[in-house]
Amino acid sequence: MTEGGVTSGVAGDVSGGVTGGVVDWRDTGFWEPGEGVGDEEFAAAEHSLFDGPFTWPVLVARRDALEHNIATMAAFARRHGLALAPHGKASMAPALWRRQLDAGAWGITVATANQALVCRKAGVRRVLLANELLDGTALRGLARELDRDPAFAFLFYVDSAAGVEAASRAAGGRPFRVLVELGHAGGRTGCRTAAEAVRLARAAAAAPGVEVAGVAGYEGGLPGADEVTAYLRDLRGLAAEFHAAGVCAGGGPIVVSAGGSAWFDIVARELGGIGFDGREALPLLRSGAYVSHDDGFYRVRTPFNRIPGEGRLEPALEVWAQVLSVPEPGLAIAGLGKRDAPYDEGLPVPRRVRRDGVEWTAEGIALTRMNDHHAYLALMPGTALVPGDLVCFGVSHPCTAFDKRRAIPVVDEDHRVVDVLRTFF
Amino acid sequence: MTEGGVTSGVAGDVSGGVTGGVVDWRDTGFWEPGEGVGDEEFAAAEHSLFDGPFTWPVLVARRDALEHNIATMAAFARRHGLALAPHGKASMAPALWRRQLDAGAWGITVATANQALVCRKAGVRRVLLANELLDGTALRGLARELDRDPAFAFLFYVDSAAGVEAASRAAGGRPFRVLVELGHAGGRTGCRTAAEAVRLARAAAAAPGVEVAGVAGYEGGLPGADEVTAYLRDLRGLAAEFHAAGVCAGGGPIVVSAGGSAWFDIVARELGGIGFDGREALPLLRSGAYVSHDDGFYRVRTPFNRIPGEGRLEPALEVWAQVLSVPEPGLAIAGLGKRDAPYDEGLPVPRRVRRDGVEWTAEGIALTRMNDHHAYLALMPGTALVPGDLVCFGVSHPCTAFDKRRAIPVVDEDHRVVDVLRTFF
Repeated sequence: MTEGGVTSGVAGDVSGGVTGGVVDWRDTGFWEPGEGVGDEEFAAAEHSLFDGPFTWPVLVARRDALEHNIATMAAFARRHGLALAPHGKASMAPALWRRQLDAGAWGITVATANQALVCRKAGVRRVLLANELLDGTALRGLARELDRDPAFAFLFYVDSAAGVEAASRAAGGRPFRVLVELGHAGGRTGCRTAAEAVRLARAAAAAPGVEVAGVAGYEGGLPGADEVTAYLRDLRGLAAEFHAAGVCAGGGPIVVSAGGSAWFDIVARELGGIGFDGREALPLLRSGAYVSHDDGFYRVRTPFNRIPGEGRLEPALEVWAQVLSVPEPGLAIAGLGKRDAPYDEGLPVPRRVRRDGVEWTAEGIALTRMNDHHAYLALMPGTALVPGDLVCFGVSHPCTAFDKRRAIPVVDEDHRVVDVLRTFF
Repeated sequence: MTEGGVTSGVAGDVSGGVTGGVVDWRDTGFWEPGEGVGDEEFAAAEHSLFDGPFTWPVLVARRDALEHNIATMAAFARRHGLALAPHGKASMAPALWRRQLDAGAWGITVATANQALVCRKAGVRRVLLANELLDGTALRGLARELDRDPAFAFLFYVDSAAGVEAASRAAGGRPFRVLVELGHAGGRTGCRTAAEAVRLARAAAAAPGVEVAGVAGYEGGLPGADEVTAYLRDLRGLAAEFHAAGVCAGGGPIVVSAGGSAWFDIVARELGGIGFDGREALPLLRSGAYVSHDDGFYRVRTPFNRIPGEGRLEPALEVWAQVLSVPEPGLAIAGLGKRDAPYDEGLPVPRRVRRDGVEWTAEGIALTRMNDHHAYLALMPGTALVPGDLVCFGVSHPCTAFDKRRAIPVVDEDHRVVDVLRTFF
């Protein structure tokens, strides 16, 4: 296993098993009643979203925005001495992972064993499972995969003796490499104190079939910049303690992983370019939502709002829906529901209206509520929508947008469909 | 087209195109890293959920509960002189639709054109699209399908002149048969007054390529039994007006459709067995969530709570998740998130704990919050969970449970996996 330095970024060969998709009646948002059309042939036709084989609502991804975001974040990580392991759970789209790896990402982060399996089928070499893993079936399967492919690098978290024991029991010929997770009071998983984490690291280092690769944590649940800064310093201090205690295996870099999509500026400041007294560190940033960004939750929270000189992200996801009914003054009902767009961290945001090929800004329209397949649009006086109009919505929270579709049309700036993005949830 | 009487229930031939599934790495909850196993072969192995090729979390459907619910609702509809067009959007599982049709359902209800297409691929003959449909691409496709298959019966809603015009423009050789939707103030789609509905029915009856088949409405957004009763009487009255005005086409029965899963007792009382002065009626009940029922939203709202002598529904969906961490007293974190279970109409409900093959009731455990892949379990003092424990959760709101998975293991009462349910979202 070549763990590599911060910037080595040996890209995986993301391909096998996840290509060869066919657009057919199974794909929501497409209207393909026939035998189906291969993804590449479909994309080559460059259908217009507005008169091609589509049916409303359609969730689309803007190609230029995706590419811009991937390049922006890769440059940010490089600039700050961070390795990037983008959280792949956001999109679960191997084609995007490939672009992230091609742009220099160290590997791909996931949240579950099933997602790690998708990574392997997609040819991702380095997988960080940013979660505890105690499932014997998955652990044994991943141990076999480690033995099968010497190039497969796999990291996951432990925060309990039970986690270390589960890993030790399932290990194969190559040891499991674990990160000891440091949490915080009121947080999610992770040891609550450094002392507990050091004790656990010693137990892991002593367990057959298990090696300690470093530390990890998640700052996303903390209330503000001061708490995030203090927490990341604790995490860095814990890694130094691990180094001093000699619990980290081998001579490679000590992994120090953090970073959602709300505080990567502080992660860069506190973990960028660090090392430990003669031993290299691998600061691994796990941000994932940046790939599509959004028009709600992350629009407000992205660190680029604090550091505009370093770049900006573009919202890449749009949902186009049709007005089905304008049943009373001030109310329109669109064909857009909980099956089509996220609603857990803010509702979709009306952006544009389109009628007979003419578009205008969706001023005076607010989405107030969704059922499974309907959205309620409150209309300010003077806002005329009629049945048949199209409304383009931005979304809030990419993770619960991507998972609504198996196939997402990728559009250029003229809304020609130039690719089909396959997701694996 | 044979519209059929209330109880004729000619079942569709639900088959083509939706069988031949393969369990592989794409299927979340399964652990199949190899080349994949055909659904039938997989089911024939009767794996135990607890030591078979599964990885947590797993959403399962209980076979006996599904069968019980399908039989219970079929009997209810028959007993009350209602034809049943179960809302297929709840499960989007053609294998369940087939059972519903085999049990006597008149046809399948859907909410979108894409879902109507899945019905056709599944061989469903009678499809009620309980929604306005203004999408030219889908309308033209469905017109072609009507011309291709004389046995295909298709109904959808109109509530505006624009809807009638869109249908008329797209119609093929066989006319579109529409239901004029009656809504109510503060509700969703549908004409707000009977006068408006009659005007629209006359326009539809006069439009080339369009026929009026009857009326439809949705009582699910009304606050209580009195309002539901009054609304259903209005709906019945509207159908009588249509009859008197002679706007309904042909000599077949006049369709009067209503019914979600919260008020079908009142629908039965107000619409069961009705007719209009020498002309037959087809009262079509569209309840869908009953197929799996739930442990939350519908557990509280099912009409069977008011009429226990007529039967009861059983919750058919369970999610099994593993405790990943017990990081501080009173808190456990399970590997169960917004990608795995519904959270829009109540959170998952802990029901049982399983450790080393022994199960007990999940007393003193409450799920308080979910992230994308984590659930926060608040533990009462004395409730000991340890990492590795399994927790079985009931869910609230079937529609946002089924749509989280493409393949759902169907279990018997010993939690042997006896079938694989495929969903098409």
